[in-house]
Amino acid sequence: MTEMLLPGAVIGILGGGQLGRMLSVAASRLGFTCHIYEPGAEPPAGHVAHRLTTASYEDEAALRAFAGSVDVITYEFENIPASALDFLETLKPIRPGRKALRVSQDRLAEKAFLRGIGLQTAAFAAVDDEIDLAEAIDEIGTPAILKTRRFGYDGKGQARIMAPADAEAALAALAGAPAVLEGFVEFSHEVSVIAARGLDGETACFDPGQNVHRDGILHTTTIPAQLSASQRTDAVLLAAKVLNTLNYVGVMGVELFVTPGGLIVNEIAPRVHNSGHWTQDGCLIDQFEQHIRAVAGWPLGDGRRHSDIEMLNLIGDDVAQVPALAKDSDVAIHLYGKAEAKPGRKMGHVNRRLGPAT
Amino acid sequence: MTEMLLPGAVIGILGGGQLGRMLSVAASRLGFTCHIYEPGAEPPAGHVAHRLTTASYEDEAALRAFAGSVDVITYEFENIPASALDFLETLKPIRPGRKALRVSQDRLAEKAFLRGIGLQTAAFAAVDDEIDLAEAIDEIGTPAILKTRRFGYDGKGQARIMAPADAEAALAALAGAPAVLEGFVEFSHEVSVIAARGLDGETACFDPGQNVHRDGILHTTTIPAQLSASQRTDAVLLAAKVLNTLNYVGVMGVELFVTPGGLIVNEIAPRVHNSGHWTQDGCLIDQFEQHIRAVAGWPLGDGRRHSDIEMLNLIGDDVAQVPALAKDSDVAIHLYGKAEAKPGRKMGHVNRRLGPAT
Repeated sequence: MTEMLLPGAVIGILGGGQLGRMLSVAASRLGFTCHIYEPGAEPPAGHVAHRLTTASYEDEAALRAFAGSVDVITYEFENIPASALDFLETLKPIRPGRKALRVSQDRLAEKAFLRGIGLQTAAFAAVDDEIDLAEAIDEIGTPAILKTRRFGYDGKGQARIMAPADAEAALAALAGAPAVLEGFVEFSHEVSVIAARGLDGETACFDPGQNVHRDGILHTTTIPAQLSASQRTDAVLLAAKVLNTLNYVGVMGVELFVTPGGLIVNEIAPRVHNSGHWTQDGCLIDQFEQHIRAVAGWPLGDGRRHSDIEMLNLIGDDVAQVPALAKDSDVAIHLYGKAEAKPGRKMGHVNRRLGPAT
Repeated sequence: MTEMLLPGAVIGILGGGQLGRMLSVAASRLGFTCHIYEPGAEPPAGHVAHRLTTASYEDEAALRAFAGSVDVITYEFENIPASALDFLETLKPIRPGRKALRVSQDRLAEKAFLRGIGLQTAAFAAVDDEIDLAEAIDEIGTPAILKTRRFGYDGKGQARIMAPADAEAALAALAGAPAVLEGFVEFSHEVSVIAARGLDGETACFDPGQNVHRDGILHTTTIPAQLSASQRTDAVLLAAKVLNTLNYVGVMGVELFVTPGGLIVNEIAPRVHNSGHWTQDGCLIDQFEQHIRAVAGWPLGDGRRHSDIEMLNLIGDDVAQVPALAKDSDVAIHLYGKAEAKPGRKMGHVNRRLGPAT
């Protein structure tokens, strides 16, 4: 029997964006309060959290006070400075653990890890300079994508190389950051599995969703995804293998390319994931509560869906559609409380209920 | 076209208990922040609200500052002192309005109102002293229930009169408070309708739920309720009549006794209601969001349910069942963040999904 945090316990969340916001709401359902740690002012999670610390990840006194006030620490994004985590983990448990963070913070380490456990990925090669890049292009061919090893998200930190002549411009675009060249994958569509693993090693997956991106940002996720029964089984087994190997605790997003040669892992995210937002209106226990259950040592929800859903992200000015969407009786609206609708900024999402689970 | 509060607006909520807590969470989904006003320390709603004022309802400076910080005021319970409301309504709109509060704060006014619009209630008579009570018993007969006109909830402020000889003890139990004697109603079961009316006069009802009480406190609500098609229609029309007559804005709980002679109104509550908690896991838009939509001038959700649900209240020590309930894959847990499990105290509830809507 593993330790189970009792109602009244405090969950510390590193990062105060929309994921922290929705985690805090889910934690409240289980009787927990949340303490958000976020360097930026007026974070969305602060609207629905009991405590908020506004301080940098370099502020050791603030980190110490934060750790002292919570029972367990989790995070809403994977790019937290290692120094902060090194310090915090001497004070309180961090879930998911450092191993998953180390792997997912670095595209090279991630791909090597995935290959190491027998999963398929795009062809890849480390690129630190123009000589590496020339060799990588020779080996992998074009088209290919040069990506920074660290800190990339929503298509940022990437440059396409359609032909070897694009190499110089791509390197310049990444401004000398350590990078990895990834071969193009010929895929029919992308799906993601939102998987969870509890403190006792139990795993549970939500049904895979099918993702469509626009301008490098997730646009829609539709459930169910187009997958054969065997692909569905492969997706779930593959996700469980990743979680078990990492001795993972919490929810992880696993993005997969569907190809005639099988499922190819695009990337893993050691946190709740945009492509899992549909669970809020499609499942009894959503991905946010599932994550809180895992980090609090509770039994997991089982991931069954009761409804088919299409999740649509509201990016930038899309938020102007809210009055019209509010009239649509099949739509649930989820806004993030962000004041300014900048281009490319995730302002909210809507879940359209398509009908009972098929 | 009515005014529609835009995301970023602030909802003021009088009362910081579990209803205010769940209203605050619902408001966050629509991009609103909440400011809670509550005299008691460490209120459950404060865990998930952006702002909290701890002050009495007599503190005019605090009330003024509260009103100045919000765009609209609503409340989680009907027993707010009239003086506070008189003051607040000079500063900001209060929804639902004063008419509904005046009616529902006083059992005598409520019954007179309901009779006045042609609805059935229990036989009743005003009781201010022992002479009134003797006359009322003569008229109504026994068994009957003596109830305080104001401030009653969860079976408090009530005394049963099984025979005329019980009259003196019943009066003593109410300690001289203005009261009303209600005749017993022979009913087969109790149902409640959670109804909503928007700022533009649109109404929407959730499906009626069937309530079972224990020790005067709601124990379970089961959806669907046992009702014939015509009873179901009657229930919805009756609720709409109440809301329309009061020019109501928000969610109201309408408790009905089912009898061979038709539906008899037990009481109305001008707020979200314990018997509507099932909507959190049975409907796309729950009663809390429905209420926020109404007070913010948004279109209402339509109230259809996607699932059949049994809601079970966790009272006092019932909260010790949480670890076992967490293992049940058909159960969603909703805890209120209260530190101490006193007898009779509502600590949380669970919604058991019985299956797809039948």
